[in-house]
This record gives sequence, C-alpha cells and structure tokens, in this order.
Amino acid sequence: MINYKLIIKMVSYILMLVSFFMVCMIPVAMEYNETNAIYGFVYSLCLIFSFSLVGIFFSRHNKRKELSIKGGFIFVSLSWTLVAAVGALPFYLSGSIPSYIDAYFETMSGLTTTGASILTNIEALPNSILLWRATTHWIGGMGIVVLTVAILPLLGVDGFRLLKAEAPGPATDRLSSKITRTAKYLWLIYILLSLIQIILLRIFGMNMLDSVSHTFATMATGGFSTKNLSVAYYSSPYIQYTITIFMILAGVNFALYFRVLTGNFSVFYKDSEFRSYILIVLTATLLITLNLYYENVYSSIPEALRYASFQVASILTTTGFATADYELWGHFSQYILFMLMFIGGCAGSTAGSIKVVRIITLLKQSLIEIKRLIYPKAVFRVRINDKPVDIALIHHIIGFIVLYIVALIFIALVVSSGGHDILTSFTASLATLGNIGPGFGFVGPTDNYAFFQDYIKCFLSFAMMLGRLEIYTVIVIIFPSFWSLRVN
Amino acid sequence: MINYKLIIKMVSYILMLVSFFMVCMIPVAMEYNETNAIYGFVYSLCLIFSFSLVGIFFSRHNKRKELSIKGGFIFVSLSWTLVAAVGALPFYLSGSIPSYIDAYFETMSGLTTTGASILTNIEALPNSILLWRATTHWIGGMGIVVLTVAILPLLGVDGFRLLKAEAPGPATDRLSSKITRTAKYLWLIYILLSLIQIILLRIFGMNMLDSVSHTFATMATGGFSTKNLSVAYYSSPYIQYTITIFMILAGVNFALYFRVLTGNFSVFYKDSEFRSYILIVLTATLLITLNLYYENVYSSIPEALRYASFQVASILTTTGFATADYELWGHFSQYILFMLMFIGGCAGSTAGSIKVVRIITLLKQSLIEIKRLIYPKAVFRVRINDKPVDIALIHHIIGFIVLYIVALIFIALVVSSGGHDILTSFTASLATLGNIGPGFGFVGPTDNYAFFQDYIKCFLSFAMMLGRLEIYTVIVIIFPSFWSLRVN
Repeated sequence: MINYKLIIKMVSYILMLVSFFMVCMIPVAMEYNETNAIYGFVYSLCLIFSFSLVGIFFSRHNKRKELSIKGGFIFVSLSWTLVAAVGALPFYLSGSIPSYIDAYFETMSGLTTTGASILTNIEALPNSILLWRATTHWIGGMGIVVLTVAILPLLGVDGFRLLKAEAPGPATDRLSSKITRTAKYLWLIYILLSLIQIILLRIFGMNMLDSVSHTFATMATGGFSTKNLSVAYYSSPYIQYTITIFMILAGVNFALYFRVLTGNFSVFYKDSEFRSYILIVLTATLLITLNLYYENVYSSIPEALRYASFQVASILTTTGFATADYELWGHFSQYILFMLMFIGGCAGSTAGSIKVVRIITLLKQSLIEIKRLIYPKAVFRVRINDKPVDIALIHHIIGFIVLYIVALIFIALVVSSGGHDILTSFTASLATLGNIGPGFGFVGPTDNYAFFQDYIKCFLSFAMMLGRLEIYTVIVIIFPSFWSLRVN
Repeated sequence: MINYKLIIKMVSYILMLVSFFMVCMIPVAMEYNETNAIYGFVYSLCLIFSFSLVGIFFSRHNKRKELSIKGGFIFVSLSWTLVAAVGALPFYLSGSIPSYIDAYFETMSGLTTTGASILTNIEALPNSILLWRATTHWIGGMGIVVLTVAILPLLGVDGFRLLKAEAPGPATDRLSSKITRTAKYLWLIYILLSLIQIILLRIFGMNMLDSVSHTFATMATGGFSTKNLSVAYYSSPYIQYTITIFMILAGVNFALYFRVLTGNFSVFYKDSEFRSYILIVLTATLLITLNLYYENVYSSIPEALRYASFQVASILTTTGFATADYELWGHFSQYILFMLMFIGGCAGSTAGSIKVVRIITLLKQSLIEIKRLIYPKAVFRVRINDKPVDIALIHHIIGFIVLYIVALIFIALVVSSGGHDILTSFTASLATLGNIGPGFGFVGPTDNYAFFQDYIKCFLSFAMMLGRLEIYTVIVIIFPSFWSLRVN
C-alpha cells in the first residue's frame, strides 16, 4: 500500500517551504513600487497556504511513518509537478505572463534549471518577478543536489552511487538521519559558493538585484538572465570570467566540496570524473578558441578565449547563459558545442544532461568489448577511480542512456509534428531534456520558446522534468506494472 | 604469428574474382562503342592481373593452411580496402572520374552499398561504366551477406549470431566447409531474387541495362541509379512499387529465405526482428502518408502512399534511391525519415546502419532496468524469439552501438572541420557510416558529395567501410594491443 497521506503531508510542507521564498519577494516588489507584482505574490501565497493547509489537515491522522520506495517515486514526481504549478502563479496572477501554460513552462524551466524561456522581452517584467524567476532556479538547484545525492539512491536510481563509498542502500529506515545530515552540508556549500559569487559580481560593478539573480542562475546552472541580451549585456571581462568560473564550479560533484571541507584536498586529483570534466572544458575551449581566431570571428586570442570559455562552460554545465550568438560562429565551433550538449556536468552537481561519469563508464565498457575480441578468454571489468564497477550499475547506466536517447527522439518527434524543422525539433528536445536552455535553429541563444504551440510547450515542460529527475523516476510511474503490483 | 602469406593469397584470389566481373563489362562497352571505357577496363584488368599474380607468386610457399582470428580481421579489412582501390581503376583510367580520390570514394560507396556519389552528372558517363558502378553494389552486397552470416561470427563479431541456432562457434577448422555451404545457398537466393526483379522491371518497360543496374542497386540496398533524377526518372507506379518491394525484401535477413527454401514457411511469423521490421515499415509509411496528404504535398492518398512507401523503404533499408525530394516534405515526415536512418534493415541482410535486432535488444535491456526498480529482487533476462539472450552478447551489442555513436560523432566532427553546417556534417556522417547515401542539408536526396574537400572524402570512404564491416572488425586493428600481443 502506498502511504498517500504521508506523500500529501510531505508535498504540503514543500509547498510551504516554496512560499517562504515567495514571501521574500514582497519587500523587493514594495521597494520598486511594483503594485501588480505585489498583488500577484499575495494572491499566490493565499492560494498556496490554502492548498497546503488542506493537505496538512487531510493527512493529519497518519500512523505509518515510513515512505515506501514506490511512494518515494510518486512523491518526487508529484512534488516537482506541483511546485512548478504553484511557482507559476505569481507570473500569471501579476499579469507578467498572460498565459498560464507559458507561466508553467517558465517555472518548470526555472525549477529544473533549464533556462529555456517563453519571454520575448525579459526587461519589461517587474524586478521582483525577475528575481522570483531566478529564485526558481536556486530552489530547483538545491532540490536537485539533494535529490541526486540523497533521495534517488534510496529509490534505486543511480544518482551518483558510483562515487560514494558510503552510499546508502535502499533501506527506508536510514532515510531521515542520513538525508538530513548530507543535505545540511550540501546546502551549506551551495549557499557559501552563492555568497562568494554575489560579492564578486558586486565588486565588478553589477547591481545587487542582478548580482543575486545571475548568481542564482549560475549556481543552479540555470541560465535565466535579467537582461534580454543575457550576460552579453555586461561587457566587463571580470564579470564574464567570474560567471565562467562559477558555472564550471557548479558543474562539479558537490560531494567533492563536502570532502574538501573535511580536510581531504586530494579528492579533485583522484576523482576520474572531475579530471575528465576539466579535460573536456579545456579541450573544447582550446579547439573553439583556435577556430574562432582563425576564422576571424574575434581579432585577438584573449578575446576568442574569453568568449569560447564562457560558451563552453555555459553549454557543458547546461547553464545556457550567452555572451555571444554561437550560431554565427564557424560550423566546427558550433558542432563542438552541439556535442557538449550531450555530455553535461558531473553527477551530483546541479548540471543536467547525461553526465560525465555515465559517459566514461559507457566508453570504458565498449573498449572492453574491443579488448575481448583480441583476448577472447580474458575477463575485464570497468574501473572508475581504481575501483571495479558493479555490473548491475553498468546495466543501470546503459539503461539510463538508452532511455535518454529514446526520450530525446520521441520528444523531438512531438516537436516536429508542430511543423518545426529537424535541427530546431531535435535541439529543442535536447535543450529541454538536458536542462540546457538554448539549442540551435529557431531555439538558438538569441531566440526563445514563445513561438511553439501550447501542446508542445506542455510536452517540453514534461521533458524538462523527465531529464531533471533522471528519467527513471518519472518513467517508472508511467509503467503499468508499477500500479498493478501489490507489494510496495 | 599472423599468416600473412595466406592473407595475400586470399586477397589475390578475391581481386581475380572482381576482375571476372570487370571482364563482363567489356562486351557492354563494345556494344555501345565506348572506346575510352574499353581502354579503361583493359588497362585496369592488366594492372589487377599483375597485382594478383605477384601476390599469388609471393605466397606460393605456404605450409600453414589455417587463418587465425587475428589474420581474419586483417584479411577482411585489407580485402575491402584493396577491392575498392582496384574497383576505382576503370572510373579513373577511362577518364570518367578525373580524380582518383573521387573514384575511390565512388567505388567504396558502391562496394559498401552506400550509394553516396561524387558525380554531378551521372548520365554523362558511358553506359558500361554506369553498369560497372552498379556492379560494385552487387559484388559488395554479396560480400556483405557472406561476411555477416559466415565470416564475422567466426571472428567473434556478432553478425547475426542472435538468430542462428546453428551459429558456428569461433573454430577455424570449420571455416571451409561451413562457409562454402552457407555462402552457396545465400548467393543462390541473392541471384534468384535479382533475376526476378530484372524480369519484372523489363516487363514494366525499363530497358535491359537500366533494369540490371537498378536491380543490382536494389538487391544490394545500394542506391546508385543510372539517371540523374534517380528512380524519380521513371513515372510508372509499377516500376516504383517493384523497387519498393524489392528494397524491403533485400532488407530482410537472408537466413530466413534460406529456411523458407528448406520448407519452413513459419519463420517469417516467428522471427521477432522480421515482425518489428515490417511494423516499422508500416507505421512510418502510414504516418508519412497522412502527413503528406494533410499538408497537400500530394493530392490523393494513393499518390502520397506511393511516395511515402518508396522513401521509407529506401531510407530504412539504407538503399538511398529517391522518387521525391523529401527535403521539400513536411518537417514531421522528414524527422521520421531521419529517425529511420538510425535503424536500418535486419541483420544478415545487405542493409546497413545499426540493424533492427540490435535496437530491439537494447530497448528490451533498458525496459528490464525499469522493471528492476519496481521488482528490485527479481531476475530478468532479455528474450529474443522466446529464447533468453546471453549477457555477453548483449554487452557485445551495447558495445557496438556505443562505438557506432562515437564514430558517428567523430566523423561528423571531421566533416564540420571543413566548414560544413551541423545538419550536413551530422547526416553526411550518418549516411556514410550507415551506408545510406543521402542525408539532409547539402547532402540531401538531390545533392551529391562532390563539394567536400579531398580529406573529407577520404575520411568518409573510411566511414563507409567502418560501418559496413560492423565497426569492431576495423577498430580492433587500430587498437595497439592487437599488434603487440604475441598469441595469434
């Protein structure tokens, strides 16, 4: 039996938590005299409180304290769907986004740290609404780290099991203490890094509101900017490099920072995912810099390097900020960025897409198949960080990547049914499923998602959640035997 | 120790066999009074005979009769490389294709049954040269069936091990008798089907030379036509439907025909790959027909059906013939064709790309991962044709698909380095690696590969061979430990 009462209770508490962030927007709205925004936030808060109180009241008599694995899947999917639904209210009720479907898309894009926008003129929105838009990133980013590091492993979905010697098994009783402790440290790191970035951006001349907004979007690898031109609005190389570096930092497995806090500084060097991640950043930046320079897109190497490193960091970490319209770059540079879209950052970070460690594992597994043709009788095992990887985990990773590709193809098919070309359809699917934001074609870095039909917007909202929750978590619920099965 | 003498001997005999087909072109050239072509063939034959005789002379003292597995890999890659090299001679020496790199590309495209062409005006070529061009398809198609059915399984590369209960193990002593017998029957089927198609095309009004050429290109799922407009030159629905049906037949596992010959007619119904293949053909045709009709590309359903079924069969079986420029169709139809490019026909057919059975296996493996989340303690196995599939074979298939995708990405990267856009680069890579021929962008169904730089043409020739030899066969040779290893 699924413990629905507990699920409702937990979801209600999460909605309350979200409303706390929403309350913080009201002083900002008052500061800027944004009447519509104030009304939007107040109405939204009233609605959310009513919902939450009804939920808490309904679930007050609940004897069973544990959430089963099945309940866990339902809880995760339901809470993301509902947080997006209530998070969309201020946009809609303030009149900033007239269509609720658009508002839902924008909020889901924020929470999943995708950064795909339906806004055609961002700067026309009230400041407090823009801050709320950036805050959805920050809430989502926090949620993702806790999700992949603490919750998904409990449900049997890999998350970053690969990297944790002390990974918790799927035992429900450990849930409360372990998650609470891990989550607390990870949030601390997240807040700390955010504070440093805000201070740096302030020093380099960005105003307070924009510093906070851009930091939220950077640390969450989201990509919502407060400017129509995205980060290209800021010509200061310091600002651009600060954001580049913090995007790269946000794409690192947060558990590594956690271990650095405990005094273990060699983790970065020892971690093969981190090494590969840095190698990818450096190689891609180098190739694009040279291509940009030789094709005379930028007149000097340092300038080319600055734009190249920014875009590489932005796409690889699935942030989606832009300082340049990469669709005007050479095709070779474009193709490299296109490839980076399939990779993403490290597992256990706020970045989306497939993740570096999964790609390494898969490549190592296929190299083994080549070796097996040469040494037919030898036994080989994939090793990550000098430890052999369990074959069940490899199957899990392969399953993930296959489902990812199937989802990618199917979502693009739905988009193309609206009469959109292959490049637009495919990269819109890739940019939402991978939580990147911009793609190529009509969803390039200077475009937006406003022109899509409503059914496509709904579908892409689903795609963003699917990618964010590591596919399995959502797909398993759609599976008929999930519901028919008696055991929990 | 690799038995180089035996390899040289076998390759020499294969070159002699190819020269037999080349001799058959001389009467055709004489019939049409094509002087340049006659000289081209005669000079080529002299060169090939000299090569072969030197090879046979050099390898005459050879005591060891068996070819090791390692030797098998070298033999397969070397023979395809050299057959393309000598097959290109008539094009070059007759002056039909002035650049040898272009001639090599065209011949490799023929032998691998890709059908990608560098010719800008096909009809300007002598008839005998066009027939030779089509004949390279037919030789290649034969070679492929024998390769995937008889030779690759001996080397440990899957071929179609999945489907054969009586699959030969990697034992070299069985090589001669088993291969000879299997190959004999498969060639018989291949010749029989070709004869039927030639007769049908003659009945429906095609002239003899074109009937033979188009049949060779159909049965090999190649795609070289003798007309600039490809099959669109023939307005007769009978001709179009005949080619459609024979393309579909050529994409079926030839072992099924073999078993039908032995009186077992239920094999088609029982074979899950065949069922899926037909299902894909029907679904894709239906969706594209409806899309074409509703977007008013064609005025009637039967007309839309005819064009849709032809293009679906042409792309899915990786033939690459065209009766319509699908780049002018609706984006939804285009996207479906794009998806079909990743699938290909059945294993053990002349079709290229990933193959239906591999995709089914991979999808079933990932569904198991979802089930495992619901029933964490149960044990699941992938079943094909109601038999459990060995986990080692699944790993082999996964390895294949990963290497396929890595190759796809890397080849596209090389193409894009020549300044070509993402769609062109990616589909040129897909269309050559998958042995399809036409792609999208500047390599669409009405375009050709003439405009690529020479280094890209060389690289794409390699891509065609890589795809054709099921990747492993070529990759394993590039691997350093293949050469350093002492055991054979």
